[in-house]
This record gives sequence, C-alpha cells and structure tokens, in this order.
Amino acid sequence: MSIFIARILIVAASVTHASASCAYGTHLSPRAEGAPIEVKTFGYTGAIGPLNWAALDGGSANVLCATGKNQSPINMVDGVFKTLTAADVKLQINDMPEGTEFENLGTTVEVVSKGGTLEVGGKTYDFKQFHFHLPSEHLDNGTSLAMEMHMVFQTPEKDIAVIGVFVDLDNGVAASAPRADSHLSAIVQLPPSSLATAAGTSSALLETVFSQVAKIASPGSVVETKPLVMSELVNILLAGSFQSYSGSLTTPPCSEGVMWLVSTQKLKIQTATFKKVRSVIGFNARYLQNTPGFNNLLAVGAQSAVAAKAAAAVPAAPAVKI
Amino acid sequence: MSIFIARILIVAASVTHASASCAYGTHLSPRAEGAPIEVKTFGYTGAIGPLNWAALDGGSANVLCATGKNQSPINMVDGVFKTLTAADVKLQINDMPEGTEFENLGTTVEVVSKGGTLEVGGKTYDFKQFHFHLPSEHLDNGTSLAMEMHMVFQTPEKDIAVIGVFVDLDNGVAASAPRADSHLSAIVQLPPSSLATAAGTSSALLETVFSQVAKIASPGSVVETKPLVMSELVNILLAGSFQSYSGSLTTPPCSEGVMWLVSTQKLKIQTATFKKVRSVIGFNARYLQNTPGFNNLLAVGAQSAVAAKAAAAVPAAPAVKI
Repeated sequence: MSIFIARILIVAASVTHASASCAYGTHLSPRAEGAPIEVKTFGYTGAIGPLNWAALDGGSANVLCATGKNQSPINMVDGVFKTLTAADVKLQINDMPEGTEFENLGTTVEVVSKGGTLEVGGKTYDFKQFHFHLPSEHLDNGTSLAMEMHMVFQTPEKDIAVIGVFVDLDNGVAASAPRADSHLSAIVQLPPSSLATAAGTSSALLETVFSQVAKIASPGSVVETKPLVMSELVNILLAGSFQSYSGSLTTPPCSEGVMWLVSTQKLKIQTATFKKVRSVIGFNARYLQNTPGFNNLLAVGAQSAVAAKAAAAVPAAPAVKI
Repeated sequence: MSIFIARILIVAASVTHASASCAYGTHLSPRAEGAPIEVKTFGYTGAIGPLNWAALDGGSANVLCATGKNQSPINMVDGVFKTLTAADVKLQINDMPEGTEFENLGTTVEVVSKGGTLEVGGKTYDFKQFHFHLPSEHLDNGTSLAMEMHMVFQTPEKDIAVIGVFVDLDNGVAASAPRADSHLSAIVQLPPSSLATAAGTSSALLETVFSQVAKIASPGSVVETKPLVMSELVNILLAGSFQSYSGSLTTPPCSEGVMWLVSTQKLKIQTATFKKVRSVIGFNARYLQNTPGFNNLLAVGAQSAVAAKAAAAVPAAPAVKI
C-alpha cells in the first residue's frame, strides 16, 4: 500500500484544517533537525488531488493552483525555455560525510540539505532540500521519465529556484553485466569519476539515499542517511546545461515566480531500486500545466465544459453508447 | 522526440477540424485491414490535452470529458470496485499465427484483433483491439505502474467492456541473471507455462509485439507483427481476478457506461523494451478522475477556483514570494 492511501485515511477527518500558510508546507524550508515532521494535508487523488488544491485551505492561499498562468510542471519543448550553460551558473553543495535526514512528508520523500549555494541571474540562493516525484512531473520533450528530483534553493528574501533532474531507469541487462553480483555497498563506493563518465551507470547518490527508503515507508518517519557525496551530483549537473523558465511550485500553494532550471543531465537508478521507491511514494505527480503565459488549464477546462454543455442542450448527451 | 510533439505540429493548424463522431476515433473499432490509419486530433499536453478535450470538436460530442461523473481512469482502491473471479468471466481470444497489424494512432500504439469474445454479466462482447498507455492510467491501490494495456471489447449493440492490465518492469538484475546473454528471440520462444508461473519473467506477447515498435515511430505508420500466441495472455488473466467498475473511455468522447475489468495479474516487460516503447509513445495518460459517482473534477476544480478568487478579493494573491 502506498503512503497516499494511508494519507487519505489520516486526512479524511481533517482536510478542512489544511494550512498552506507555512513555508514548510511548500517543501521549501527543511524543519529544524529533530523537530517533528509535519505530514502534508494535500494529496494526488480525488478531492484532495491537484485539480482541487485551490479549495483545500478554505481560503485563497492556494488560488494560484487554479488561476495562475505560469504554473509547473510543463512539457519541456523548444520555445518554452532558454538554455543556461554551466558557465551561467555557480553551484556549490556541501558534502554530508555524517549523513543527513531523509524523511517521509506523506506527499514525497525528502533529503534535508547541509548547506550549499546556487548563484544565477545575479542572485544567490541557499540549498534547502531535495525531494522526488514519481513519475516525472515535467515531460522531457514529450516523454515521461520514471522519476524527477527537485533540488530546492531559496534566497533570504524567499525567492525560489529549483533544479529539476530527470531520473531514468538503468538499462538492467546491459548496465548490470559488469556488476551482476555486486551489492549496493559496492556501487556506493564507485569513484565519482566513473559516475560522471559512464552513461549507463546508476547514480551513487540516489542508490545511497534510496537504500534506506523502506525505513521511511510511513508518513512522518525519518532516517539518517549514509554519507552523501554531493560533489558527484554537482559534477554531473555542470557537465550539461539547464533549460530555464519561470514557473511555480508544483505543490500547494503553487506560488509563481519560481526559477526553474531543468537539467539536460539525467540520473539513472536500477529498476529494483525504482520499485522500492515506488512502493513508498506510489504516485505524486501534478498533471501537466499549460504553456507559460497561457490561461490556467482549470479555467480553460471549465470554459470548455460550459460551452459543450450549452451545445448539448436537449436532448441530453449520450451516456452509455456511442 | 516523441510522437506527441510531432502530433502537435500536425494538429496545430487543424485542431478545429477534430471530429469525435467516429467510433474509430474512440479506439474502439479497428479500421478495415489495409485502410489508411486515421491519426488522432486530440493530445496529452497543453490546449489539446485532457483538461480541454470537451472543447476539441467545437460541439458537445466530448462534453462528458468535462461533466461526466463516472469517468476513468481512477485509483483502484477497495470500495470502488467489485471483484469478479475467473469463474464470472468467459474469455476467448484467437491466436494470430499469421500476425496482425500494429499501428501508431498518434495517441497510442494499437494491435488489431483477429477475433475473440468476452462473456460477462449476461453479455457477449467481441474483441476489437488492444493498445497501451504510458505511464499507467489507473493507479494500482495508489501506485503508478510503468504502462497499462487496454483490451477493448464491444457488443453488436455498441456496449463496451475493457480489460485493463498493468504492465510492470522486469526486475532487471535478478530476473535477467539466467538469460543475461539471451536475445529477444530466445525470450519470445519461452514456453507459455514458464510465463504463467515465473513471476519475474517478461511477457512473451509484449516482447513480441514491442520488438517492432521502432518501426511505427511515426503517427499513421503500421507494421505486421510476428505470430501472437494470445492464449498465453488469456491463461495469465484467468489465473487472477478482475476489479470491476462502471467508468468511461479514457479518451474523447469519454463515453460512460464502459465496463472496466482491471486485472489483478500484471504483465512484465524488460526495462530496455520499456524504453523503446517510451521513445515512441512519450506520454499518453489522462489525469486521475474522481471516485465514480462524484462530481467531475473539472467542475470541482472550477468551483474551487471561483471560491478561492472570491476569498482573495483585494489585495491580489501573492504572486512571487511566499
């Protein structure tokens, strides 16, 4: 059973108490170490799902989810983004030799940062956390990937930048051949250089993080990761470029003005690892939004429904047979 | 590049000509063999995507996409379906020793049936075709699967039944160990008995069909499959049970009264095969619909937006910072 089913049970009696006022609720600010984990009160199915996020707080905090014209995720096709090269970006992320907290927020699994900065467009953002969506939220030129990692950065003035990284599946047969009998610990110990150069190789960082995902199967649970070598990730990202556009948070309150940097580099994971993560996350991708600058698809859809209903008039639309 | 990007280019100038009046356009009726393939005029992104399907024909043919209260796909959780056992269902599908047509409709890849019947609930449906969605459209108790196969049946009176089968990824390392160096042809030749019993084994049927998916990368293209042993599939399905509910087509015109039978048996494919299919399909899953009997989520979402906008009043909702 996925965490989201469990969440629906938890949330069923308290959905009207959902708060969207806290920055923590946006996946932006990691909680203080040791503080209780606040399980989210939005979801991905039915009445607490993405099409109804605007209603969840009973006020207007989430209104942009239903009205914003620069919402995320989107289909990453030519024309909607501009390309930033590694030279346009200064990225530094602290290694975490002592590990860090890996927690289940009910809506995603998230790794708390131990510091780092992103300098882009004249601003310096602090690295807060990274979390995962399954399947990918953005489409890579029309294609859905297995997962997507979101690395969240914020300035002291609360401006937000997110690096999106597609997570693809290792090819299995081909890629696993040289290490068919190796254990996860051996993979984790692969030198960084082999990761950055071997296209078919699973990400050591992701395999290390996800090796403990079964320990946070329940919303609100947390585990300490093994050491995380973040410089490996930085090297991989800076070997590619970034597809940049101005979008939104993909979770309530769907705040806009978020600087998106979708990496052209993909991280790979083993299929077996993917399935372990899937057994915890289940499904947590918001539906695709309209091209930036165009009307929110909920408004477009509502208008279509009104027009189609009017056209249907009498007799009523055929219900059963076509 | 996925077929959907190509489709957007094709459709861009002709979206107002979209027709939803033909049964063929619903994925129900296979075309006559040799007849030209009609590339679909709906899509999965932006203004031709699922939130705006009701508007695509300029009339009311697709109105149920935006107003129907028994729409598909849904989250398959206890309470929304009733279980039918193999004893409740009589399923017979003709083998296709001479192969059959495998075609790219722009919105999916589809295999044309050479006959078969499904007897359930006192009706006899004829087997028309099967096609694929990526990722899965239904959720399996909260979990998104790699793909979903839809086997479409229809009575002479045009009543529709669809068997949905989740397609999961073969575990790669574990499952591939005994056949690390085998070629696809060897896998296809596995005897049916090993398929029905070996949990980690790829589906011979799917590997056979998909071995040619690269040949139909363009919308409107078609290829003849190798021989298809459909009895293997029937045996697998009848070894499990069916989660049944009354829903809709997951494509325009979103007609309701469709009898869904979601199999508890999953078919597996190799990760490498999945990636080949993905490079053609890209993404073609409609967003999750509301629990059967509850309001259409587009109506719910529109109402939420109106309420949230009213609550926002003046001053305007925060746009950039949170």
